[in-house]
Amino acid sequence: MDFDLATGVAILERTPSAMRAMLAGLPPAWTDATEGPDTWSPYIIVGHLIHGERTDWIPRAQRVLDQGPDRRFAPYDRFAQFRESQGKSLADLLDEFGRLRAANLTTLAGWGLTDVELAFEGEHPEFGRVTLRQLLATWVVHDLGHLAQTARVMAKQYREAIGPWRAYLPIVDR
Amino acid sequence: MDFDLATGVAILERTPSAMRAMLAGLPPAWTDATEGPDTWSPYIIVGHLIHGERTDWIPRAQRVLDQGPDRRFAPYDRFAQFRESQGKSLADLLDEFGRLRAANLTTLAGWGLTDVELAFEGEHPEFGRVTLRQLLATWVVHDLGHLAQTARVMAKQYREAIGPWRAYLPIVDR
Repeated sequence: MDFDLATGVAILERTPSAMRAMLAGLPPAWTDATEGPDTWSPYIIVGHLIHGERTDWIPRAQRVLDQGPDRRFAPYDRFAQFRESQGKSLADLLDEFGRLRAANLTTLAGWGLTDVELAFEGEHPEFGRVTLRQLLATWVVHDLGHLAQTARVMAKQYREAIGPWRAYLPIVDR
Repeated sequence: MDFDLATGVAILERTPSAMRAMLAGLPPAWTDATEGPDTWSPYIIVGHLIHGERTDWIPRAQRVLDQGPDRRFAPYDRFAQFRESQGKSLADLLDEFGRLRAANLTTLAGWGLTDVELAFEGEHPEFGRVTLRQLLATWVVHDLGHLAQTARVMAKQYREAIGPWRAYLPIVDR
């Protein structure tokens, strides 16, 4: 379906509470679990979402809206959360993500974006020209991807425990 | 990791609120969306989880615990929700799932299962002998699989809308 602001925001505003409902209060056996070396735990994923709120979606959208001479996005640091989450509990991170997301959605609503502005372009460091509409749709899909990843990482911890049911539950082998 | 009751229940008790946080109040553009013919929408998935609460996990566990002469599980109807959800809103279904899950977890806790009982066996119609421990671990993974599926189904609706970012977001092509 086409991106429209109200429909997209309906997902964006739910992600912090969805992450909280899945993760808050879970034992570290779940929240620190990974899919193997160099893969992310639910704890790491929440830190990554926080970094995106600070440096990716709204700052990039702002750069597109400015329509200045340099429309090139700053590269995104996919590993920032390994530094930035240090010393913080998962509960802290869930709170921080919720606060930042709410503030960013307030900013977005304040812009009152029109179809004309949604068609404005920025420059992605790898893809080249992209529209504001594509950037905002990507924010939504990025949320949903990390929600799915969070469930999958946890599911894999029981890959052996489910015995023969593994044949019916492809998520543990994905 | 090995299945243990407290760790597994920590997931089971969160699934209804995670589904609610993701889905409650979303427009039908998201909740009735599918991945194509003969695939399930979030609405259908919640109905499937309800049917599992009524006929699968706890009834099968009860059959194992009884250790009667017939330990064979009734086959599971993967399509029951197409009948049983008729006329119900998604809000109804989310409430129903939450109520049934809470009641089932009360039943489970009331059993006070020991390691000896968790090793009791039932007979799966296809796999043959399975343990109660495997059945309960499968309940957990089944929840997480459908949470991931719910996020994935919605993500795919923006497959085209994200433009070139599709290369970075494999969830829309999974």
